[in-house]
Amino acid sequence: MKLLIVGGVAGGASAAARARRLSEDAEIILFERGPDVSFANCGLPYYVSGKIADRNKLLVTTPERLRSRFRLDVRTSSSVVAIDRAAKTIRVRELSTGREYVETYDKLILAPGAAPLTPPIPGIDLPGIFTLRNLQDVDRIKSVVTGGIKQAVVVGAGFIGLELVENLVELGISTTLVELQQQVLPPLDQEMTTPIVEKLRAKGVNLVLGESADGFEKSADGIAIRLKSGKTLTAQIVILGIGVRPENRLATEAGLELGVRGAIRVNASLQTSDPDIYAVGDAIEIQDFVLESPSMIPLAGPANRQGRMAADHVFGRTVHYRGSQGTAIVGVFDLTAAMTGASEKSLIRAGRPFRKIYVHPANHAGYYPGAEQMTLKLLFDPASGKVLGGQGVGGSGVDKRIDVIAVAIQAGLTVFDLEQVELAYAPQYGSAKDPINMAGFVAAGLIRGDHPQIDVEAILKMPVEQRPMLLDVRTPQEFSQGQLPGAINISVDDLRERLSELPRDRPIAVYCQVGQRGYIATRILMQRGFDVVNVGGGYKTYRLYAQVQNA
Amino acid sequence: MKLLIVGGVAGGASAAARARRLSEDAEIILFERGPDVSFANCGLPYYVSGKIADRNKLLVTTPERLRSRFRLDVRTSSSVVAIDRAAKTIRVRELSTGREYVETYDKLILAPGAAPLTPPIPGIDLPGIFTLRNLQDVDRIKSVVTGGIKQAVVVGAGFIGLELVENLVELGISTTLVELQQQVLPPLDQEMTTPIVEKLRAKGVNLVLGESADGFEKSADGIAIRLKSGKTLTAQIVILGIGVRPENRLATEAGLELGVRGAIRVNASLQTSDPDIYAVGDAIEIQDFVLESPSMIPLAGPANRQGRMAADHVFGRTVHYRGSQGTAIVGVFDLTAAMTGASEKSLIRAGRPFRKIYVHPANHAGYYPGAEQMTLKLLFDPASGKVLGGQGVGGSGVDKRIDVIAVAIQAGLTVFDLEQVELAYAPQYGSAKDPINMAGFVAAGLIRGDHPQIDVEAILKMPVEQRPMLLDVRTPQEFSQGQLPGAINISVDDLRERLSELPRDRPIAVYCQVGQRGYIATRILMQRGFDVVNVGGGYKTYRLYAQVQNA
Repeated sequence: MKLLIVGGVAGGASAAARARRLSEDAEIILFERGPDVSFANCGLPYYVSGKIADRNKLLVTTPERLRSRFRLDVRTSSSVVAIDRAAKTIRVRELSTGREYVETYDKLILAPGAAPLTPPIPGIDLPGIFTLRNLQDVDRIKSVVTGGIKQAVVVGAGFIGLELVENLVELGISTTLVELQQQVLPPLDQEMTTPIVEKLRAKGVNLVLGESADGFEKSADGIAIRLKSGKTLTAQIVILGIGVRPENRLATEAGLELGVRGAIRVNASLQTSDPDIYAVGDAIEIQDFVLESPSMIPLAGPANRQGRMAADHVFGRTVHYRGSQGTAIVGVFDLTAAMTGASEKSLIRAGRPFRKIYVHPANHAGYYPGAEQMTLKLLFDPASGKVLGGQGVGGSGVDKRIDVIAVAIQAGLTVFDLEQVELAYAPQYGSAKDPINMAGFVAAGLIRGDHPQIDVEAILKMPVEQRPMLLDVRTPQEFSQGQLPGAINISVDDLRERLSELPRDRPIAVYCQVGQRGYIATRILMQRGFDVVNVGGGYKTYRLYAQVQNA
Repeated sequence: MKLLIVGGVAGGASAAARARRLSEDAEIILFERGPDVSFANCGLPYYVSGKIADRNKLLVTTPERLRSRFRLDVRTSSSVVAIDRAAKTIRVRELSTGREYVETYDKLILAPGAAPLTPPIPGIDLPGIFTLRNLQDVDRIKSVVTGGIKQAVVVGAGFIGLELVENLVELGISTTLVELQQQVLPPLDQEMTTPIVEKLRAKGVNLVLGESADGFEKSADGIAIRLKSGKTLTAQIVILGIGVRPENRLATEAGLELGVRGAIRVNASLQTSDPDIYAVGDAIEIQDFVLESPSMIPLAGPANRQGRMAADHVFGRTVHYRGSQGTAIVGVFDLTAAMTGASEKSLIRAGRPFRKIYVHPANHAGYYPGAEQMTLKLLFDPASGKVLGGQGVGGSGVDKRIDVIAVAIQAGLTVFDLEQVELAYAPQYGSAKDPINMAGFVAAGLIRGDHPQIDVEAILKMPVEQRPMLLDVRTPQEFSQGQLPGAINISVDDLRERLSELPRDRPIAVYCQVGQRGYIATRILMQRGFDVVNVGGGYKTYRLYAQVQNA
């Protein structure tokens, strides 16, 4: 067996190591265009600020290590420029010498990754404008940002964009974040990003949503960034983080089938349309595990596992890649935002029926010091209760709850199962009713009809005169500090005595701070014959939406 | 509907609140022997040291709150002394007045909890000897430990015992921990407790294993604690945390069926042998979800959910309590120990076939600052790979991985599913190959035969002359700092060149630090025809066992 692997980072390096473990006798050659293999791309933004201080830490492994431990023939600075499928050969260019040569293969694994998008904007090639993909990029960026510059512009508020912003702010650089969409973190639903927006603003970030760069010019102060609206920004560095495109040139020229957004199409065994050629990692089209539709989900975890599985199949094993559910996470200063499975907007796009609930629990028992708040959003099938997606934003413990939901989605669990989930409880770690149980209770109650719910935005979209009567069941003090427009206030504890004040000929929507007291009030009013719903997730959820509208 | 509930803490209070949400018209009376309802028993140890400073924080809710919000008839300081099942009445004693009266019921929910064990040892009633169950207990303990005492003895190294020890040490009190078994945290497997033992000793705790208190006497310095071995300890306070017994007197006298350890037997609807009487919480027998055998698992989370479900059934809903898998966690200084599902010893006791693996990963990417180590143990069915149990000990992130395993067990997932779990990865939160994926890889490799493994203790139990040749594939430097007795050292990177030094007529057991390089070496040697196994979990796992032997 002669196995060639193109690309030596996450998917390629995993495939190569796995291949050697499966076969001591195979000839395995790993081609990497850059000088490094298997570096920690997810750590690059933190090297910019020096939070990760030692550059060597970013080298997960080295060509030398791969040679000594796995007897791999590792060829760095070697670009694979063409595939001849009929001859089963590839053409390789040594970047240092320009020499080209041909290698034959029995099997070929493509792990070329994805390249940062650089739109054809005037001035895009000016010095001081960067993208961030590898160690060479980060070296260049670091040399600029540690040179005493005052202003930076990051274009694109996705995961990498937000990480860059945090690290630039940590360096004391005045930072502007420009995002084409009306929200940060576009994979998440917009309202869930409100706390991130507030955090960015609190940290002094100049956040410019619904805008894009239209052109770049050299200016006295560095670079003038012209925006679509006509406004101009000034910075000494511009970093683009507006997404990636699959590195599909080799595959395209070889006539391999492509899928969504030009990603390389593979089957569940990671084979391309040529069964002797596999593809893995950020360059491939995968099945979205929840929506069961083709997608491109460029993440490190799936890339590693795909590499491993492709090698398994090369050596005759049966594999079945189950697709990806897009579990992703980002730290933004002391906040965490994470998601898994489908988002509300992806469900809407797919025309898939769903319901949603919000809870706003603390990460652990409130009576133990240091509890931090989070917001969890759970998306589920309205009939079966099957969990379709989860999103979380807040302090400590968001990652844990999203991971729990990720496993629940993988296993096909329902919200009724989440009611019963038995998670570890001691006061430092959780609650007797964990946030996951709470989310399960609320969602299951909604499906069972115990807990009729109206979504905040459904109210906001209604003409004022068509809205139900809004009944705020919090304390007068909470009410006085902000309420839904037009709401009246009767505390839940007084409600039973004041039923006569409520209309029997008009729908009532009750709400409290997070949904819990609203639920109790809903139960009381339902049983007394009122036409009542609870505003899902209460005033806190309303604030997430209201802030969105004000953004 | 007239519903009486006996016991107002976790299960009882949950049942009462749920019952009211289901029915505004029901008459619901909650009887509680103590002065408080629904207090935070899991927080009590932290109030001893003042880590939880405000006593009011321990009151999760109050009788007044339950009355105003849920219109519950809450009767504290009221002891239910008898049930007349034929008449469907209970007899109640008002503890303040001594007055007794009778209440009728349609349905009755028993949530009496469990009482700390106090063995009939001479002197057990001396002042200064305490158990810890409620706020009155903790008030008494706090008044002693904040009075300038120097020495404390805690008897019992379970969850509460360890929490008490931590909080006594935080107060600067010289603390001895006495445990009957040869290990701390008896629900866990012994080797997994080694880091806890080391931590306790590092914190100056005098740990006395395999011992028990035989008698207490008043002495000049406080209390003399005579141990079974004849040794004597001195302390000004003794706290017993040696386990609990179900409060089954009422149920017993009413002729209700009891189960294991005298716990009240219930069916999947939480009904006792009398269908009008339910029982929930620490006093009941439940089904062990993994072992499918009756058990008693007194934990707050299950108690809360049982209370809720019993109320559901009272009001005509179909419920099915799935049993408990015993997910539990404890913080011991900066360490966390947690478990879910079956332990190795419970599987052995049950005669259930299993295999096990250990991994020793960091909680997040090693290249990001602040990574902390943990040890995870995974127990699984040797044929199907179904996950049966998990245990973790270490720094940050143990709780997350145990929660993920808990959901996997609930869902019936296998180690092959764990290979594919898609958890949230950014460098602060995890790794592209999360500890859970790593555990899945190792376990699945073992089942597939990729990765023949021998357990550390299997080697330790063999007579030296029957042991396989022990091959340490770490670096010479690692080897020089400690190795398995009789091992020879060939670094994995040199192994392929030095095969001629290895015997072909004798089994070889390879090992490295955590199992990863040992696995690579095993793959190399297997393919070259050697009779080889990897020592599961490597030298770190060996150390866990070796320390156990030295304890």
